[in-house]
Amino acid sequence: MKIGILGTGQVGNLIGSRLIENGHQVMIGGREANNERGLAFLKNNSENASYGTFEEASFFGEIIFNATNGRFALDALKLCNTDFEGKIIIDVANPLDFSTKPPTLIPEFANTNSIGESIQNLFPKAKVIKTLNTLGMALAVNPKQLNDGDHSVFVAGNDENAKIKTKTLLTEFGWNVENLNDIGDITASRAMESYLILMIRLSMSLNVPMLNIKVIK
Amino acid sequence: MKIGILGTGQVGNLIGSRLIENGHQVMIGGREANNERGLAFLKNNSENASYGTFEEASFFGEIIFNATNGRFALDALKLCNTDFEGKIIIDVANPLDFSTKPPTLIPEFANTNSIGESIQNLFPKAKVIKTLNTLGMALAVNPKQLNDGDHSVFVAGNDENAKIKTKTLLTEFGWNVENLNDIGDITASRAMESYLILMIRLSMSLNVPMLNIKVIK
Repeated sequence: MKIGILGTGQVGNLIGSRLIENGHQVMIGGREANNERGLAFLKNNSENASYGTFEEASFFGEIIFNATNGRFALDALKLCNTDFEGKIIIDVANPLDFSTKPPTLIPEFANTNSIGESIQNLFPKAKVIKTLNTLGMALAVNPKQLNDGDHSVFVAGNDENAKIKTKTLLTEFGWNVENLNDIGDITASRAMESYLILMIRLSMSLNVPMLNIKVIK
Repeated sequence: MKIGILGTGQVGNLIGSRLIENGHQVMIGGREANNERGLAFLKNNSENASYGTFEEASFFGEIIFNATNGRFALDALKLCNTDFEGKIIIDVANPLDFSTKPPTLIPEFANTNSIGESIQNLFPKAKVIKTLNTLGMALAVNPKQLNDGDHSVFVAGNDENAKIKTKTLLTEFGWNVENLNDIGDITASRAMESYLILMIRLSMSLNVPMLNIKVIK
């Protein structure tokens, strides 16, 4: 599958490299198409890796990952110059304000809003799915590193078909189907983004290399 | 131990009855000392149960549970007419606004604040501990009902000795020591209160009688 990734940072690199391992063609997109991390992505991956602008990556992919910094996510998506009609946007961004210690949520995305639903509202023709933001991305794209993969990930979005395609990518990453929790429509992004505050406190108090939660029912 | 509980609702009743089973003397306190649920608490429990006003219950207990409705928690504590000097207040309240569907957090307690830290700020001589708000209270006071008790609970507060006493009560409820996660000072109440948004979405999507999360590390 052809997949575009918006964001050339560590998160975008981790997702892109893993997708290429799984046989996909990936274009990673940056604000400009000549930053070092974007070039490193090309160097570290097979011929299935390419690198362009936000606009080029969004045109390239049937599925687009939003792996930009949460604060600038909406601006980055606007730079794609498209309404994303029919495309799946998988949003993994976190609305964290790192100017406070420990971080808090960026107020405009807190409690009664979220990045996930803001993207859906801005691009009503896109099929936005929120997932993978609730744990470190190195673990998120390779969950079997922890507890034999027996821990939980969440999925939210309005479009059932987009959820099925997203879940397929997640199972390719190594997630067991029974650990994929569909928690509802795109407004449930609030739940995944709010949880970050607990995740941060757990990280601070446990000081372990990898960490997640498992739903017990 | 003598324990006061503020709030005669279902949450206060569940905590009080379980503490009495575990050998404690419990006074449950209401706004007035003659409501039906307070009287039911007396009827359903041994001679170790008593019932009074908020003020009487707060005077009675070495440890005070705040089991009031989150929206009115600070007002209820003010009605106790004490500064709680040296007393442990175990806050289990949730800052949920049920006027929205699904519920959101009450804005004054969201993101950069919480009920737990608001109580600590209002009563600096008290030793406030936040715990038990992250799962249904029937399960919270009897965790072995789910997965042989192997799931997680969180504790936050500024006073180490108060944490130790709280953890003792939690182990009497049936929590395993390795499942008690100390996540830091009282500002970490934000983490436990923010998590409610995810807990609500899980409850809505899973439709199971009991539900919690386990920290995997």
